[in-house]
Amino acid sequence: MSKLFIVGIGPGSKDYLTEKAKNVVKNADITIGSWRAINIFDDIGEVIGLDVKDLQEKLENAVDLAKNGKKVCVLSTGDPGFSGVLKTIKKIAENKNFDQNSIEVIPGISSLQLAAAKNRISWDEANIMTFHGRENISDILNVIDNGLPTIALPSKSVKDMVKFLLDNGIDENRKVTICEKLSYPEEKVITTSLKEVLDSNFSYMCVMIIY
Amino acid sequence: MSKLFIVGIGPGSKDYLTEKAKNVVKNADITIGSWRAINIFDDIGEVIGLDVKDLQEKLENAVDLAKNGKKVCVLSTGDPGFSGVLKTIKKIAENKNFDQNSIEVIPGISSLQLAAAKNRISWDEANIMTFHGRENISDILNVIDNGLPTIALPSKSVKDMVKFLLDNGIDENRKVTICEKLSYPEEKVITTSLKEVLDSNFSYMCVMIIY
Ligand SMILES: C[S@@+](CC[C@H](N)C(=O)[O-])C[C@H]1O[C@@H](n2cnc3c(N)ncnc32)[C@H](O)[C@@H]1O
Ligand SMILES: C[S@@+](CC[C@H](N)C(=O)[O-])C[C@H]1O[C@@H](n2cnc3c(N)ncnc32)[C@H](O)[C@@H]1O
Repeated sequence: MSKLFIVGIGPGSKDYLTEKAKNVVKNADITIGSWRAINIFDDIGEVIGLDVKDLQEKLENAVDLAKNGKKVCVLSTGDPGFSGVLKTIKKIAENKNFDQNSIEVIPGISSLQLAAAKNRISWDEANIMTFHGRENISDILNVIDNGLPTIALPSKSVKDMVKFLLDNGIDENRKVTICEKLSYPEEKVITTSLKEVLDSNFSYMCVMIIY
Repeated sequence: MSKLFIVGIGPGSKDYLTEKAKNVVKNADITIGSWRAINIFDDIGEVIGLDVKDLQEKLENAVDLAKNGKKVCVLSTGDPGFSGVLKTIKKIAENKNFDQNSIEVIPGISSLQLAAAKNRISWDEANIMTFHGRENISDILNVIDNGLPTIALPSKSVKDMVKFLLDNGIDENRKVTICEKLSYPEEKVITTSLKEVLDSNFSYMCVMIIY
């Protein structure tokens, strides 16, 4: 039976893998994902590594393989349903007439959840936003002053987000927490002010919380 | 060192436990949770079972034990930071002058994530709401017609939520999916219309998705 699993692996370290993710990967005919994602599984069969450049092509491959009767896993950081690869795969499946019912999504711990957890925030009382892959970030201005913390995946970089906020009149002393490389040995969680962020450097792998 | 872990166990079955949750529980001096939650851990030491009636008392106990230098785990369904026990414990910790920095939250897969996954919904493009423990559910009317699916944990019951929607002029033929007992052997995911829900019976353990 054709089956395409989209498997959430959590923020990156083995610690946040679920039993379900491990089992599905173990039983797949082939698993497609970044090498970073592939390498956290101990029990894995045939694999195809991908990087940002060939993402689209390899995902199309994944759907073709599933159409041809293979049990295929696609690995996704965090939760595939939060700013993840689910949307892209649904589009490809539609274009290729692959039955959506043969897609099974395995949820994972999102980076936003670990960011909230590290800061003891109940995220049902927070603005949850993702700007990843988006040019227009102005939506953040609609919520930034509603009294709740805003937990956001930045568009290009933390700095760009902060510049945008300052350009739009947000107080430069506003408190912000940057959660970088969550769950990795290099994890950093730094609480500072918007203006201080401008003088710092962060990788692209960040969740920001604006209070 | 005093330490209070609030551990997300996911929607209920072992399948969604993370390595992190298992390790933290394994190394705790004492673990407090519902029997349902306690029973999914294979490797667990001293335990205190609780039920809804003595929840507050047992959580106060948990904080006292941590204050006295024990490594204490409190188990939470789903993610403790989504409509979970984190809020309650923060309040207790404050009242008891327990250092908030000694609280560590371990995120878990929320029932809302599994509901979204089962229905292949990207929940960054959904209204995420919880009415659990809330009397006033009128906020749902602010978002119900904004074009995004609404994923909600009901207040008292699915039926009450539906009655409220119908009383407030929402079309009785509106499409709704009820996700009951997710991850358990009795799991049911049923797509129907609001009016049909009135003739059905669901347990309290449901996530609803209104399209
Ligand atoms: C394509 S999105 C994927 C989000 C993912 N589906 C999730 O639920 O976390 C990639 C973005 O997620 C965030 N991210 C993913 N993993 C992270 C980590 N370990 N630490 C901090 N941010 C992370 C960063 O903002 C990154 O640019
Ligand atoms: C106190 S809230 C806890 C929510 C939890 N923190 C989470 O992230 O899923 C309890 C509510 O969560 C939902 N819920 C929890 N586990 C569920 C499951 N396995 N299936 C369906 N709904 C569930 C139900 O709406 C239930 O009334």
